[in-house]
Amino acid sequence: MRPVIALLTDYGTRDGFVGTLRGVIKRLSPFVDLVDITHQIPAQDILSASFVLAETAPYFPSETVFLAVVDPTVGTSRKAIIARNSWGLFVCPDNGLLSRVHLKSPLEHIVSIENPKYTLQTQSTTFHGRDIFAPVAAYLSRGESMDVFGPPLEEITLLESPKPIHHVDGSIEGRIIHIDVYGNLISNIPYMKAEEGAHAEWILGEKSFSGIKQTYADVDEGNFVAVKGSHGYCELSINKGNASHVLGVKRGDKVILSIKPDS
Amino acid sequence: MRPVIALLTDYGTRDGFVGTLRGVIKRLSPFVDLVDITHQIPAQDILSASFVLAETAPYFPSETVFLAVVDPTVGTSRKAIIARNSWGLFVCPDNGLLSRVHLKSPLEHIVSIENPKYTLQTQSTTFHGRDIFAPVAAYLSRGESMDVFGPPLEEITLLESPKPIHHVDGSIEGRIIHIDVYGNLISNIPYMKAEEGAHAEWILGEKSFSGIKQTYADVDEGNFVAVKGSHGYCELSINKGNASHVLGVKRGDKVILSIKPDS
Amino acid sequence: MRPVIALLTDYGTRDGFVGTLRGVIKRLSPFVDLVDITHQIPAQDILSASFVLAETAPYFPSETVFLAVVDPTVGTSRKAIIARNSWGLFVCPDNGLLSRVHLKSPLEHIVSIENPKYTLQTQSTTFHGRDIFAPVAAYLSRGESMDVFGPPLEEITLLESPKPIHHVDGSIEGRIIHIDVYGNLISNIPYMKAEEGAHAEWILGEKSFSGIKQTYADVDEGNFVAVKGSHGYCELSINKGNASHVLGVKRGDKVILSIKPDS
Repeated sequence: MRPVIALLTDYGTRDGFVGTLRGVIKRLSPFVDLVDITHQIPAQDILSASFVLAETAPYFPSETVFLAVVDPTVGTSRKAIIARNSWGLFVCPDNGLLSRVHLKSPLEHIVSIENPKYTLQTQSTTFHGRDIFAPVAAYLSRGESMDVFGPPLEEITLLESPKPIHHVDGSIEGRIIHIDVYGNLISNIPYMKAEEGAHAEWILGEKSFSGIKQTYADVDEGNFVAVKGSHGYCELSINKGNASHVLGVKRGDKVILSIKPDS
Repeated sequence: MRPVIALLTDYGTRDGFVGTLRGVIKRLSPFVDLVDITHQIPAQDILSASFVLAETAPYFPSETVFLAVVDPTVGTSRKAIIARNSWGLFVCPDNGLLSRVHLKSPLEHIVSIENPKYTLQTQSTTFHGRDIFAPVAAYLSRGESMDVFGPPLEEITLLESPKPIHHVDGSIEGRIIHIDVYGNLISNIPYMKAEEGAHAEWILGEKSFSGIKQTYADVDEGNFVAVKGSHGYCELSINKGNASHVLGVKRGDKVILSIKPDS
Repeated sequence: MRPVIALLTDYGTRDGFVGTLRGVIKRLSPFVDLVDITHQIPAQDILSASFVLAETAPYFPSETVFLAVVDPTVGTSRKAIIARNSWGLFVCPDNGLLSRVHLKSPLEHIVSIENPKYTLQTQSTTFHGRDIFAPVAAYLSRGESMDVFGPPLEEITLLESPKPIHHVDGSIEGRIIHIDVYGNLISNIPYMKAEEGAHAEWILGEKSFSGIKQTYADVDEGNFVAVKGSHGYCELSINKGNASHVLGVKRGDKVILSIKPDS
């Protein structure tokens, strides 16, 4: 099996930052396959990185090394870590980036990256992607054991993920946990809570609408629709429109789902 | 020869969609070479996808598998298909995306993707790229015969491509069939109709200008110029400017070319 | 060692241009590893390309072929060249793009690309990336000697890089030589001129501030900070802000550094 390093950063693609990461890795691990998840996580948005990483990682080959760098506190005392779960190995700053990965497939072993043998000599205080994370990922992809990089850690930083609240009246209060590039609003309400055909009523800010559909095109263009999102959660959208812009909804906003009895 | 999958989508690069496709493919076909054409086709713009795919595909190795997903009717009854021509294999929704490919190198064999053995178990109604197209492309890249995926199709959806009209007065009425990222206007008038040095007169909306040049820099900055575009068609541009913005020209707009007798 | 071609262009990623380059290369050199530096150099900005190339190239494997196309004078008499230094081989138009590469690791051998055997038959006047640079890079990655492509050149176009000026009063007058995607201002003043803890005073346009820090987060959000940039130069930034936008500073603007005696 050819080793794979999957990359996720907020470096953008307009400058040389990502190219530098790739060069560092290729120099140390010439046979690795570099596969981009995205480099356009909104700048310093750890929650977004955490969501996207947890939703894409399970689709990769199981020995993949995930190099994930969204690092607003680079150069401070925050640790650099390697963590392992059933999906593969994760190399990243310890700032909560693995919160949703851990929720979906618990981390089994974590080490703190401290061995200077595996990082670049000319270490900067602002570009640990190049100087620490990329070389460590490269060595891991060559089969180096994670324990050579530093001592085990008992715990890491985890950001809380909001859970849906079940009210006495039977309604479910969820939160928007991610907004994708199309402006689709991904809630934390699992799809099985609202099977298609049920008399679902949604309240989102000042807007309310009903129903749950198979796909966007099941309503007319410009109309609101709730669908089973590809992540397995209820997703609130406008067919061929941008629900986030139209409603002014932001991540963390509340959404209420009521299932009406079949009358 | 190492197998190649070339990817073209409108998923954008800001979310995890493309990363997920890549993961799914790498898991099923570890030795494939993933090569991006673009993931920034304007959202749901089948005509643009059709143009870009037909202009890039002939440059790829001849056994390439092209995975092309611009899929505004995902989840409806539109078919998922595999088609073969002299350039390679195409995996895509049956919505007209192959129209210009077929025009340039006729499709020889088409099947409807129906065999559930080759798609992901957890099938969504909104992300067939991940659940159907990516795994099918992966299996094809491993050498699976296209006939195992489903029954042959006699015909597919083709969108009409406008052809230049030759008027009695000798003028040619063309259409703008593509606008590139620089705002260059690509017409459907083949370059041989307007060899350099001929007394060409162009009418485009309210603007008229004359001549045809070797390259953009043959006119002063900010001036209009018609050149032999890299696609083989007459291309209308502004040297170091954006012709589409300046003229307000859109795809489908008319352009008139008159060749004046050498006086 | 698997051969690597690293790509840097201003083609953007929204059209088929980069996909075409990749296809051309893969067809001629199936086993090459294609690694993107960036395709989003600002359109026709040779200085920016020169900076990014010189800052990323040294991190790549030493036999890398760098394919760099920012080519505002495509189709004119400007030469197409191959150049070699300790980092690898560079294939590009002769327009100054290698200026900073040469400054950091002198070019040792240069040839003019003239042998039509190694370029595409259907040569356009507007897309030499596809027709000349990509095939030449592909042949080089297969081990072809650079001398088969054309005659040696004694010199190439070099753009002058401003050097810091040391004034009699001990102050240093530098220039902003690059602005990254975050709006950080990279000066041409090497970091050792302003070690951390020194009483550094900065004047940048109408703004003055003092100090030099380890990392952005050493000042409060929204404050100005000078740090050791990852390129080794003094970098002027706003913690979690965009210094370029806030100050209206452009590339080439002046910055004054005064080191005050430890009082």
